[in-house]
Amino acid sequence: MGNSSGKIFRLTTFGESHGVAIGGVIDGCPAGMKIDFERIQQQLDRRKSGQSKISTQRKESDKVEFLSGFFEGKTTGTPIGFIIKNEDAKSKDYSHIKDTFRPSHADFTYQKKYGIRDYRGGGRSSARETANWVVAGSIAQQILSTKGVEIKAYVSAVGSVKLNKCYKEMDLSNIDGNIVRCPDSEYTEKMIFEIVKVKKEGDTIGGEITVIASGVPSGWGEPIFDKLHADIGKAMLSINAVHGFRYGFGGVDISSSRGSDVNDIIIDKSGKTKTNYSGGIQGGISNGNDIYAEMFFKPVATIMQKQNSIDTEGNKKEVEGKGRHDACVVPRAVSIVESMMALTLVNHYLISKTNRL
Amino acid sequence: MGNSSGKIFRLTTFGESHGVAIGGVIDGCPAGMKIDFERIQQQLDRRKSGQSKISTQRKESDKVEFLSGFFEGKTTGTPIGFIIKNEDAKSKDYSHIKDTFRPSHADFTYQKKYGIRDYRGGGRSSARETANWVVAGSIAQQILSTKGVEIKAYVSAVGSVKLNKCYKEMDLSNIDGNIVRCPDSEYTEKMIFEIVKVKKEGDTIGGEITVIASGVPSGWGEPIFDKLHADIGKAMLSINAVHGFRYGFGGVDISSSRGSDVNDIIIDKSGKTKTNYSGGIQGGISNGNDIYAEMFFKPVATIMQKQNSIDTEGNKKEVEGKGRHDACVVPRAVSIVESMMALTLVNHYLISKTNRL
Amino acid sequence: MGNSSGKIFRLTTFGESHGVAIGGVIDGCPAGMKIDFERIQQQLDRRKSGQSKISTQRKESDKVEFLSGFFEGKTTGTPIGFIIKNEDAKSKDYSHIKDTFRPSHADFTYQKKYGIRDYRGGGRSSARETANWVVAGSIAQQILSTKGVEIKAYVSAVGSVKLNKCYKEMDLSNIDGNIVRCPDSEYTEKMIFEIVKVKKEGDTIGGEITVIASGVPSGWGEPIFDKLHADIGKAMLSINAVHGFRYGFGGVDISSSRGSDVNDIIIDKSGKTKTNYSGGIQGGISNGNDIYAEMFFKPVATIMQKQNSIDTEGNKKEVEGKGRHDACVVPRAVSIVESMMALTLVNHYLISKTNRL
Amino acid sequence: MGNSSGKIFRLTTFGESHGVAIGGVIDGCPAGMKIDFERIQQQLDRRKSGQSKISTQRKESDKVEFLSGFFEGKTTGTPIGFIIKNEDAKSKDYSHIKDTFRPSHADFTYQKKYGIRDYRGGGRSSARETANWVVAGSIAQQILSTKGVEIKAYVSAVGSVKLNKCYKEMDLSNIDGNIVRCPDSEYTEKMIFEIVKVKKEGDTIGGEITVIASGVPSGWGEPIFDKLHADIGKAMLSINAVHGFRYGFGGVDISSSRGSDVNDIIIDKSGKTKTNYSGGIQGGISNGNDIYAEMFFKPVATIMQKQNSIDTEGNKKEVEGKGRHDACVVPRAVSIVESMMALTLVNHYLISKTNRL
Repeated sequence: MGNSSGKIFRLTTFGESHGVAIGGVIDGCPAGMKIDFERIQQQLDRRKSGQSKISTQRKESDKVEFLSGFFEGKTTGTPIGFIIKNEDAKSKDYSHIKDTFRPSHADFTYQKKYGIRDYRGGGRSSARETANWVVAGSIAQQILSTKGVEIKAYVSAVGSVKLNKCYKEMDLSNIDGNIVRCPDSEYTEKMIFEIVKVKKEGDTIGGEITVIASGVPSGWGEPIFDKLHADIGKAMLSINAVHGFRYGFGGVDISSSRGSDVNDIIIDKSGKTKTNYSGGIQGGISNGNDIYAEMFFKPVATIMQKQNSIDTEGNKKEVEGKGRHDACVVPRAVSIVESMMALTLVNHYLISKTNRL
Repeated sequence: MGNSSGKIFRLTTFGESHGVAIGGVIDGCPAGMKIDFERIQQQLDRRKSGQSKISTQRKESDKVEFLSGFFEGKTTGTPIGFIIKNEDAKSKDYSHIKDTFRPSHADFTYQKKYGIRDYRGGGRSSARETANWVVAGSIAQQILSTKGVEIKAYVSAVGSVKLNKCYKEMDLSNIDGNIVRCPDSEYTEKMIFEIVKVKKEGDTIGGEITVIASGVPSGWGEPIFDKLHADIGKAMLSINAVHGFRYGFGGVDISSSRGSDVNDIIIDKSGKTKTNYSGGIQGGISNGNDIYAEMFFKPVATIMQKQNSIDTEGNKKEVEGKGRHDACVVPRAVSIVESMMALTLVNHYLISKTNRL
Repeated sequence: MGNSSGKIFRLTTFGESHGVAIGGVIDGCPAGMKIDFERIQQQLDRRKSGQSKISTQRKESDKVEFLSGFFEGKTTGTPIGFIIKNEDAKSKDYSHIKDTFRPSHADFTYQKKYGIRDYRGGGRSSARETANWVVAGSIAQQILSTKGVEIKAYVSAVGSVKLNKCYKEMDLSNIDGNIVRCPDSEYTEKMIFEIVKVKKEGDTIGGEITVIASGVPSGWGEPIFDKLHADIGKAMLSINAVHGFRYGFGGVDISSSRGSDVNDIIIDKSGKTKTNYSGGIQGGISNGNDIYAEMFFKPVATIMQKQNSIDTEGNKKEVEGKGRHDACVVPRAVSIVESMMALTLVNHYLISKTNRL
Repeated sequence: MGNSSGKIFRLTTFGESHGVAIGGVIDGCPAGMKIDFERIQQQLDRRKSGQSKISTQRKESDKVEFLSGFFEGKTTGTPIGFIIKNEDAKSKDYSHIKDTFRPSHADFTYQKKYGIRDYRGGGRSSARETANWVVAGSIAQQILSTKGVEIKAYVSAVGSVKLNKCYKEMDLSNIDGNIVRCPDSEYTEKMIFEIVKVKKEGDTIGGEITVIASGVPSGWGEPIFDKLHADIGKAMLSINAVHGFRYGFGGVDISSSRGSDVNDIIIDKSGKTKTNYSGGIQGGISNGNDIYAEMFFKPVATIMQKQNSIDTEGNKKEVEGKGRHDACVVPRAVSIVESMMALTLVNHYLISKTNRL
């Protein structure tokens, strides 16, 4: 269970890292939407491996093939089936994983849960799965665009290189102007330098991504248990390596602040607030201001250094990363974050249509 | 929509702050479980108002009445219906809320979403609702206890008074030994001092709660979209005022760390790890180590100071908090956090029963 | 599990026949709907016991108390909690049920499933539960009325007394003009005669109900697995004693007919068809014609005659019905059928709002 | 919406009759199950077109390709993705459907619902979709087999040729011994004769299928709203052309019977009953006796005769069936019925694991 996301616009995915293909089904996509297939591929390309010197060299073209759900370029309201073939799945040598549990990987937990696992390339637990999300998320983004909603994510920290600027002080059209996907040119250099250094040492490093959704009208989000920020949080925490989530503009540390400092004063009938410490959401419902959230990523668990572990029999064993891995995932995760935001928002948009007669 | 939580052990709630009663239905509770009704009431009492000098003085006995689902003291597998009457609902004077949107409250968003709202005491958006969760969460805790799982939450920060100790260094049986629910006596004093000071100034302050679930076996959690930590995160972000969530022991800042520093080395067949930066979860599945998470709370939005806002017509209007409010919610939120953890875990326990033939 | 119905307008119920109260929660009811509470009570009164000489003499006033979800007489979009107290629950003598499994009752299956059961009055398996459905169904009917949809059910057979008339040949405003709820005066007499006779003999008899929903626009229903007729069928099969379901006008036996005889010819742009063998549904989606369905009821299992059975130890035992039971349930089931139709339709109405951008 | 079925073992499907491929994802399949892939293909072959003189001549090999979810021949607990390519999709000439609504087809309703439709071969409304169900249903059947459950369906009527024998009087191993899939050789001849005759006249005919599931233990089914028979009913009513459903052995007309005639007397501790008018289900829960149900099929809507209809502009238009259609679908629907029964039962089996601690 657990391979579906969304109540109305519902994505169900499948696929292992080194199987024939990964893919999914989108059910509940509204009919009559003209889709720009190139935009989907562009979002996939922002996520794919082998883009630059700072990403893994696994070569996957990540071409999505749609099998259903469109007619003459438009959605028909029927489910959209799609697959992405695994092309560079080198299934040769997995002896080092087959019988060993790598530290901070899902090898041990899948084995314990299911009693069996496809260990090749991490199987189902591989971040390759996120390509499926980008396909669906990109379609969701296109639907939201017709409602005036735009979503932008960018890298706001690599290790201890933390961007201390509000998104309003920067030109977000610069995000894709560099390989690390940070809109500030000064920090960009530092971040790239950090990743290159860490990579050279056979190590990995964590980071942060910030996401903004502008143009969201007030009224999206379903209290009590499907609050908008709770659903965004869950979506983001689904991303491999995300271990923390915060919403609301965080120029200050809100949990150590006072009410008189961080209450957002409403200044006009549209609900516009003077400040936006609430990140565009009150009581779990959007209030018309920019949605703002931050995601915290762990360092990639696979490092090119020797580590102790155990084998499946419980014997001590040394493991060392092999193959093709990222030293820092956040540059490639930007379109994944946008996709998860889009999937969450499109669902709340559709549900909100049922709130009144 | 959105008033249900859980796939198998499913809680559905209802009720407004100043209506006749709040309550809920628990569907999917396993049959044959002997319930200790006093433990339920104790958890409610830890949450209720008027407990101490640092909590609001609204007087609610918060006595839960069960209407179904038990027979001779045991669960029957049929739905458990329950209500908690609203006793101290002073519906007299709401003129200051009726036509005005309070800053950082849900008044504006409910009005925009539904076109109508029960403004008395915040209506459905009031934290009074969380009493329902404690009823269900306490039953869930009792079920989990039979499986060896114990859940403990405590206050780890009030404003900038932040407890910098690992839970293993403290005696968690001290949590309820003081009104702020912090297990460390030194910090306890500082925290109470901080709340009293803030309250005197008619202001409010944020805080943090830490939760630990010990005894969770490996194998709970359903990747890809129902990862254990993602479901815990969503549950915690449902709590009024929680704006951030992090799992994995955070003595260090994981997102600025290196893989070689925070990878957890497995040291024996049971999956025990040397460190627990992963917070007991790998790939969305529990690994047998302690589950560890932290929640970040905003300051309460109602302050006893004048603030600017607008009325429902869009005219500028001054508002000032009236009545009975907490200056800091975290001491009362401890049993809510435990309840949301229990609700999440009991669902993953039940789902895990279907993972194998 | 299994105590909820509906994807958007979702009813969750609880309660045992002889507990404190039965009740439920309706989540997802659109906001701003003015509710006529008397109409709800009228529907409950059509279902309640003790109405006439042909129904059981258990005395329940079946007064519904609403606990939440309304403000100034209108729905607020928040969940509607309600209870109906059990007043005439005589818990005295159940020794004859406690240790014995009554033939064709749910005693044996509940015991086997849960290992425990509330045997008083059949516990959760009692048809008393259906009062909850009528509360929710009546609200659903009022919502549908604002869209021009009207639902009418009537008794079309009692035992072998089968009404062989199309609903268009009768005046449906006569349904409540008699105690058996059949719109044809000739058949009414025969049906009442049959019930009285069967009752006198300490026996029970089955029957049939026909339901029509007029004014349903084309486009409701979600293929593939939530086809409109499949959801109606499931709803009807949930009613105690219903063992068969058929949709599509059945003046002829459709499964032994030819395509050339029962194809419905579309005669105008609105989708109006010359005949309506399809019962207003094509491919699982409403086509704008009247929805038409028939439900088949088993005789009540409790008879006032001696029957063989076994006790909980497996020993042979004689059982004999005691107390207050209907000889034929269909007259009281008319408002239940209408309610289940309304609950199904209101969900498909709300879902259909998300079909297009 | 509506393209998923099942709460735990959940099938989500996609695909249009004349698109690239149809397919699906099965989520929640228990891990560690050794699958016999040939049995899956055999079930597909029983459903496929072009099997015999009485089925349509469309040539589809219906070879299923699995893309994920298996490792070394066993299920891994991760989702099973699969596709079936459309090989004989002649997309040449659809001018007769493109602008015309065929009588008793879903052309009109899809157009009204979505504002757009893939008219080629009926698009999503084609019964080609049911091949997906057979893939998933066959896996479900293999799981159930390990629990001792066996499912058998057979044709019990073609038009007015109705088999008046109880399944216990026949040898069910004969079902596949003839092209009509009726276990009785005498009726087999009559049924084939009827289909051939109807086909020659360019017409179509309805029919009936009976299904038996033996070996189901007591305790499956979740009252109130997911009763076992209600879920079976919904599953069966999802099958194209099924317009009626009845459970419980129907040698007599139960709704015109008396309680004293059709009550099932329990004769031993296992719950075995003397008669089985209840069809193996009491109160929505299996009682350990054979599950028995009957499905009623409409005649296929496409006939090789001229019929009146309208075009998309509302003008009168004559239509006439073209191409390759069945005169009677029931022989090919036998493995579909078995599959839907298996999908329903496997879900209730898995859910029943959570009923007790």
